[in-house]
Amino acid sequence: MGFLHEGHLSLIKRAKAENDVVVVSDFVNPTQFGPGEDFETYPRNIERDTEMAVGAGADVVFYPSVEEMYPTGSSTFVEVEGEITRVLCGASRPTHFRGVTTVVNMLFNIVQPDKSYFGQKDAQQAAVLIKMVRDTHMPVDIIVCPIVREDDGLAMSSRNTYLSDEERKQAVVLSQALKIAADSFKNGDRNARELEKHIADIINTKPLAQIDYVSVYEYPSLEQAEIISEKALAAVAVKFGKTRLIDNVILEVD
Amino acid sequence: MGFLHEGHLSLIKRAKAENDVVVVSDFVNPTQFGPGEDFETYPRNIERDTEMAVGAGADVVFYPSVEEMYPTGSSTFVEVEGEITRVLCGASRPTHFRGVTTVVNMLFNIVQPDKSYFGQKDAQQAAVLIKMVRDTHMPVDIIVCPIVREDDGLAMSSRNTYLSDEERKQAVVLSQALKIAADSFKNGDRNARELEKHIADIINTKPLAQIDYVSVYEYPSLEQAEIISEKALAAVAVKFGKTRLIDNVILEVD
Repeated sequence: MGFLHEGHLSLIKRAKAENDVVVVSDFVNPTQFGPGEDFETYPRNIERDTEMAVGAGADVVFYPSVEEMYPTGSSTFVEVEGEITRVLCGASRPTHFRGVTTVVNMLFNIVQPDKSYFGQKDAQQAAVLIKMVRDTHMPVDIIVCPIVREDDGLAMSSRNTYLSDEERKQAVVLSQALKIAADSFKNGDRNARELEKHIADIINTKPLAQIDYVSVYEYPSLEQAEIISEKALAAVAVKFGKTRLIDNVILEVD
Repeated sequence: MGFLHEGHLSLIKRAKAENDVVVVSDFVNPTQFGPGEDFETYPRNIERDTEMAVGAGADVVFYPSVEEMYPTGSSTFVEVEGEITRVLCGASRPTHFRGVTTVVNMLFNIVQPDKSYFGQKDAQQAAVLIKMVRDTHMPVDIIVCPIVREDDGLAMSSRNTYLSDEERKQAVVLSQALKIAADSFKNGDRNARELEKHIADIINTKPLAQIDYVSVYEYPSLEQAEIISEKALAAVAVKFGKTRLIDNVILEVD
């Protein structure tokens, strides 16, 4: 969705290292925003984005208009049904993933990539897209790349620009809480509910943090688990003022 | 969906005349059948189909299994929303077109055709697929080919094999009624409701015919119209015993 940061650039650089031609899509997609969300105010700067994308190795920057992507009368949706789109961000944003899968399907049809690079910060999005590609037999490999963080640990996000100084300071608690949970997991804590409680307790020490969810699910199926047997996603969504931030960590048994 | 007849072969022949390589898909798609419909009993004969398809010019006959197309856990659907999928066959078969668009999207992803040939007998299906391809920006041309009929006018259909001798005899009324309506349209009758009534009255002269719908809609938008200004679809669905037959004619102002 543009307003590029180091997280996006890491995807472009990796794509360039592994492919001949890199196409970057830069499109603030209206169908993945719900009513009252920040579609209008989402930061945009295509000149800056183009310069950064090309600097990182992009051969093409594709920034269609909303009218090109959704011409008058458009009413076709691609939807991944099931728990995978209903939990986590799907719970508070019920049409979000339908908008994501619809636009990514369009972008794949237009660009026809062999590989497509997504950030692990949007871990649920990546899981949903991997399922979409598998279910619809699209000839695209989805490659999920690590979260890029600020020096203090805050996950890079275009929405970080919304934060006040004090919110920005407190927001670091997300990555700190997840790190502590990951350490606790390494030390043998496999109980999903206890890990969730641990993370939430840490986040709640910050007065500006309003938790949307703190959840531990099996990964990448996003199925419920009491005891983590193999691989799980610990994910959080927390509001600071009007700004909703997400972060996550993969918990994996060695 | 296989069990090929002259209608299918006309698509294959035209495709071969206009392209280098022709791929025929032959797949009885479960997701386009509703509960209690004829998925299990739908006629299948892949050996006969393959011979006929190759004879007509097919280079590849693609007949996947249900498990290949819909592996365990599949839950992604492509859906064209709006009146176009709610009227006509969409009214009595509410999940039918969702199944059609989902499987055709898969087939397009797998085969990646430049052009795809569909029969005008399934006029609504063709309109829905044209809209799907446009809305999702798939690089495929949908080409709609004329209805092929038996000598007495009955539109070719794999389901014709279900008809008893007496049903088969009476079923000819569909094409007769549509022909009379088309003549009446040519003579200046532009009133959609009157044309519908005219067609229904003729069909109702046959005791075994149970009308599902007789409808005249603008084409290809499938929007309601009282008076036809330009181009319309006169379409019928009629049951003879358990067999549901469809037929249609395009009404066009010269």
